[in-house]
Formats: sequence, C-alpha cells, structure tokens
Amino acid sequence: MNAPRHPDPSQWSCPVPLQSADTVQMAHGAGGRMTRNLVDTVFVPALRNPALEVLHDGALLDLPPGRIAFSTDSYVIDPVFFPGGDIGSLAVHGTVNDLAMCGARPLHLSAGFILEEGFPLADLRRIAMSMGQAAANAGVSVVTGDTKVVDRGKADRIFINTAGIGIVPDGMEIAPTRAAADDLVLINGEIAVHGIAIMSVREGLQFETEMVSDSASLHELVAAAVDVAGSHLHVLRDPTRGGVASALNEIAMAAGLSIELEERSIPINEAVRGACELLGFDPLYVANEGKCLAIVAPSHARAVLEAWRRHPLGRNAAVIGRVLEGRHGSLVLKTRIGARRIVDMLSGEQLPRIC
Amino acid sequence: MNAPRHPDPSQWSCPVPLQSADTVQMAHGAGGRMTRNLVDTVFVPALRNPALEVLHDGALLDLPPGRIAFSTDSYVIDPVFFPGGDIGSLAVHGTVNDLAMCGARPLHLSAGFILEEGFPLADLRRIAMSMGQAAANAGVSVVTGDTKVVDRGKADRIFINTAGIGIVPDGMEIAPTRAAADDLVLINGEIAVHGIAIMSVREGLQFETEMVSDSASLHELVAAAVDVAGSHLHVLRDPTRGGVASALNEIAMAAGLSIELEERSIPINEAVRGACELLGFDPLYVANEGKCLAIVAPSHARAVLEAWRRHPLGRNAAVIGRVLEGRHGSLVLKTRIGARRIVDMLSGEQLPRIC
Repeated sequence: MNAPRHPDPSQWSCPVPLQSADTVQMAHGAGGRMTRNLVDTVFVPALRNPALEVLHDGALLDLPPGRIAFSTDSYVIDPVFFPGGDIGSLAVHGTVNDLAMCGARPLHLSAGFILEEGFPLADLRRIAMSMGQAAANAGVSVVTGDTKVVDRGKADRIFINTAGIGIVPDGMEIAPTRAAADDLVLINGEIAVHGIAIMSVREGLQFETEMVSDSASLHELVAAAVDVAGSHLHVLRDPTRGGVASALNEIAMAAGLSIELEERSIPINEAVRGACELLGFDPLYVANEGKCLAIVAPSHARAVLEAWRRHPLGRNAAVIGRVLEGRHGSLVLKTRIGARRIVDMLSGEQLPRIC
Repeated sequence: MNAPRHPDPSQWSCPVPLQSADTVQMAHGAGGRMTRNLVDTVFVPALRNPALEVLHDGALLDLPPGRIAFSTDSYVIDPVFFPGGDIGSLAVHGTVNDLAMCGARPLHLSAGFILEEGFPLADLRRIAMSMGQAAANAGVSVVTGDTKVVDRGKADRIFINTAGIGIVPDGMEIAPTRAAADDLVLINGEIAVHGIAIMSVREGLQFETEMVSDSASLHELVAAAVDVAGSHLHVLRDPTRGGVASALNEIAMAAGLSIELEERSIPINEAVRGACELLGFDPLYVANEGKCLAIVAPSHARAVLEAWRRHPLGRNAAVIGRVLEGRHGSLVLKTRIGARRIVDMLSGEQLPRIC
C-alpha cells in the first residue's frame, strides 16, 4: 500500500472561490471565468436576443432611417424590490420613457450593473428577468452590458445604469422650447404614486390600500399622442425626480414662458393625497414613474386627451393647465380656493433614492 | 430709531442646504434646483457641446450612414485618481476603445454618475474636466448624462457609467469568430502596465520609476490597422480586466480554434515584470487600458505592425502569437525555455476594482 501523498499544490484548481456561490463574489466582476459564467447563466437567459448573444465588446445594430435619440439614467432606488416593480423593470421603463419623451421610438438598451459583493444571485436573477420582461413589453432589446463588483460596504446591493437608443421620425420636433402661449398641459393620470409607494415601503407605513408604483413604459401613450396631434404636440416630459413641479418649471424656463396649473384638475388618488399630508410632502414634487406631461396646441388637446383615455395607462388623463405669455419661466398654481401661488423648482432633497 | 425686527420666516430662502457647499449633497441628486446647478456649473462647462446643452431627457443626433455600434461600461476604479489618469478619462477611453474594437468610429458618449454624499465638488470638477479633455482627444462628445447621489457609506466616492455610439463602415467585419488558422496575433505595446500602476498606488509600493497607467483611446490605432489591412483585419480586442490571457481565451473559444503565444515576443517593461513577480501576479492576467490585440491574416500582419510602430501608442508593437487549428478554444504559451503550457481564463479574482 502506498503511503498517503499530499496533492501537488501547483495542480490545485478551484474554479469558484471557496465561499458561497449563492451570492455575488468579487470574481464575478474580474472579467474571467466567473464573469462569463454570470453573463451566460443570469443575463443572457433573462435578456435573450441575437445582438446580446454575440458577447462582443459592443453590439452591432442596423437601425431604420431617422435621427437617433440617445439617453442614459442610473438607478439607485432603495428598496430594490417594491410594490409595482423592482430596480430592473424601473431601469427599463425609465430609459424607454426618456427616449419616448424625445419623440423617439425606443429600440435598444445597454445595461451596466454595479453589484455589491454578497448580493444574492437569486435576487439578481429576479431583477434580470424583470428587465427582460419589461424590455419585451416595451418592444426594446438589451443588446450590450457590463458587470462590475465592488467589495462589501462599497455600494448598496445593486445599482443599474441603462442607456438607450431610439429613432426619431423625420419632421418630429418635440422640445421644451416649442411650448407656446395658449398651449394646454395634459397628464395621463394620478400624480405622486411612485414616490409614495416607495416611501410607504421604506418607512413601513400601512395604508388601507397598498400603494403600488406607477412604473410603466409610456411609449404607447406617446405614439397615440403623435398619431392624433402630429406637429401640434409640442413638448413631452416624464415628471420623475422632482415631480410635476420641477418638470414644468424646467419647461417654462426653457421656453421663457409661464405655466398655470389648475389644482382642482390635477388627478390625485385620495390615499396618496392623505399619505402626502401625513408625511409632509407636496404631491407636486413627488416622483412619478409612469406619468407623462404633454404640452399640446389647444386645437389638438382634446384629441390627445381622448386618445390617452382609451389607453389603460391614460384612463385618468386630464388637462391640468395652460401656457401663458410673460412672467418668464414661472410655474403658478391656481388653488382650489382660487388663490394663485408660485410653485418653485424643488430646493433641497425631498425623497432620496426614489429612482 | 426702529426696534430691531425679526425677518419674516416666510421670506427665508436658502438655495443650498445649510451644509458645506464644497461637497456633493443628497439634494444634488434630487432632480431640482441643485441638480440643475450641478449640471450647469460642473458638467456643461467641462463637457461643452451643442447636444448636451439642450438638456433634454436625451440627445438628438444625426449620424452618418452605416451600422451602429453600441457599448457600455461602468467604472468603479479605486483609487479615483492614479498616475496616468483618473476615473473620468478612464471612463472615456474604455468606452471609446470598446467601440473601436467593433471596428466603429466612436462618435457620442453618455455619462451616468453615481456620487456618494460628501464627495468633494473640486474632485468632481477635476474628473469632469478630465472626461471632457479625453473626449475631445478622442473626437467624441458626451451628449447626455445623469447624476444620482446616494447617502454616505452607500457607494465608494464616485462610480461612472459611459455608454457609447459609433458608426461601423459598410463592409467592415471585425468579430472574434473571424479568427482563422495561421492568422497572427499583434499587440501595440507593453502589457500589464495599468494593473501594476493601480496596485502600486493602492499598496503604496515604491519602484525606481513611477508606474504610469497606459489608459488611452485606441481609435487611431484601429483606424491605422483598417487602413493597411482592410478586410484582412479579423479581430480586435482590448485586453482590460482579465488581461491578455482572458481576452485571447474568449476569442479562441468564439472561433473554435486555439492560439499560441510566444512568451519571448510579448512586450513587457522590466519594472512591471519585477512588480508582477514581487506581487505574485502573472502579467498575462493583469489589466491593460491602452492595449489593443489584433488578429490579422498573415499576408497583412507586417503592414499593421509597421503602421502601429509609426504611432506613439504603438512604438513597442509586436507579433506575439498565432492562431492554430484544433485544440478548440485553448490558449497555449510557448515559454522562454521552449515548454508549452495551457493559459486558462482567469479563475477567481486577481485585482479588484481595476477599472
């Protein structure tokens, strides 16, 4: 019988670190075998499409003719999972919407993941699947990506960046500077839902009805508005961080005009209004993730309103204000009791890490 | 004399939170006035170009004809400033290079910043300026961006994502699957420089000569290779994370061939070799940020080599190996003493947060 022999250490090989393989490891971001494994077992199955599967340094795309819209957003939302979505679906909806707000048909997304060591792989899979589902629903594909891992305590679980490319048909001009006096301001539904949904999870608040984020892709609503209003559709904007107040302030500034909002016309859910009062938030500043503001020539506003009300995401659409000459760059709220007050841009921080 | 009067609190206004304005605040990521201020005072001046200044949700771009290359990378490098660059220039070079490796002419970048509360604004300005300079040098423009801020301790100072768009001329086919038996493998210079430069800063190591990262945009080298080799240029790859070994392993796998490297032909600086020995790293696995691997038909390899050697970034260019039939997907190193050993993909983690 041979004496027991120590294995030759130079022959040792351990394809995964001697730690739990249920969580993200530093080696998942090292560009070697484990990075490849993560891509092959998590991202490609969830986001499957031919361009992504080539796994080159970038994706090669044949685009239809037209100008390109190009946009990016990083998502750092806390919590990662919330009623109505998660950081993955949000990262798709958000960038799809930014493209749609330029009048573009969204086509392709990139996805850059920054993962904290120790993040559960099951959660990452769930997020990737949710991105894939949201992308399929929006008719876009995630064609290229990147994963970095940072040591425990150097990031908060997961951050995702998406950049997106869309095509803007010739002749389409959607821009804040196109807002004109007498234009009407429309919104596709109730405001402040996303921000309050996130806050209620974060603060452990209980309401009679669960607050569910409105996170959704708005490209169909945009297409519907373009269909009926054509070049009479002047401005589109999704009032995310900073809410309706910040979005309309930016448009008023860009156009050098003012905008008057009619408080009684602004759709708001009673539970959301109550939560805002309880938490001390002005709903005009609370983030939305499934809302679209449109500024439309008065001749075509009703057509957009009706088209939106026929869409599931626009059932509560309303005309909420109008563009006025003068008082350059200001937003004015006509309150329920008929008073007028200036609604400034958000100063300081209201809801951190809302998207 | 009037009695001293308290100011009316309703008239109080504080455009910045009552904290130091020398550092990033949560409100810089809130989408309101301070976000706008950060964009106007830091990003727009550093990255100035007409598309960015529109400050719409996305940028509208007229692109020349051709297929689009689309790529993304996030940068989490530690330290943020290092000899030879910083996270800003790296984020431009890295994505410019990913586009160039698809055979594309890089045109436009997006930039997504994730900032930790308390990050010095002076550092952010320096990084933005460095991005602007790197973009100008590479002939690209940063046309759209996004900033998020997370609370102290929830990110490590600054993470940057860049996504990029380039145009691939018709007929250009650069892809790992195009590697063919007898093709030669070229590199434009000395390997392992970036990784060792970062490690020496991080570990406070002193060498006789300072180690300076090779971080650079490689689009001119790519254009030079295309000029002289045309369709005989088969594959391009920048050996970043995972180094030359991981990059060539991926290409061999994609092509179903093997690649033989000649150790004595691989350019390596003596100081870098010494540092690798000291630190226990195999330089074949150490990250590069200014190196390009080209796989070229043997008929045209010399022309590429000569074109590269005429360029400042290619003075030490060399033929380092060749593509062989059989032994599908493996990378073999012929050592200085004539032995052959398999060089596998990187398993596990070698240098965390190298890019």
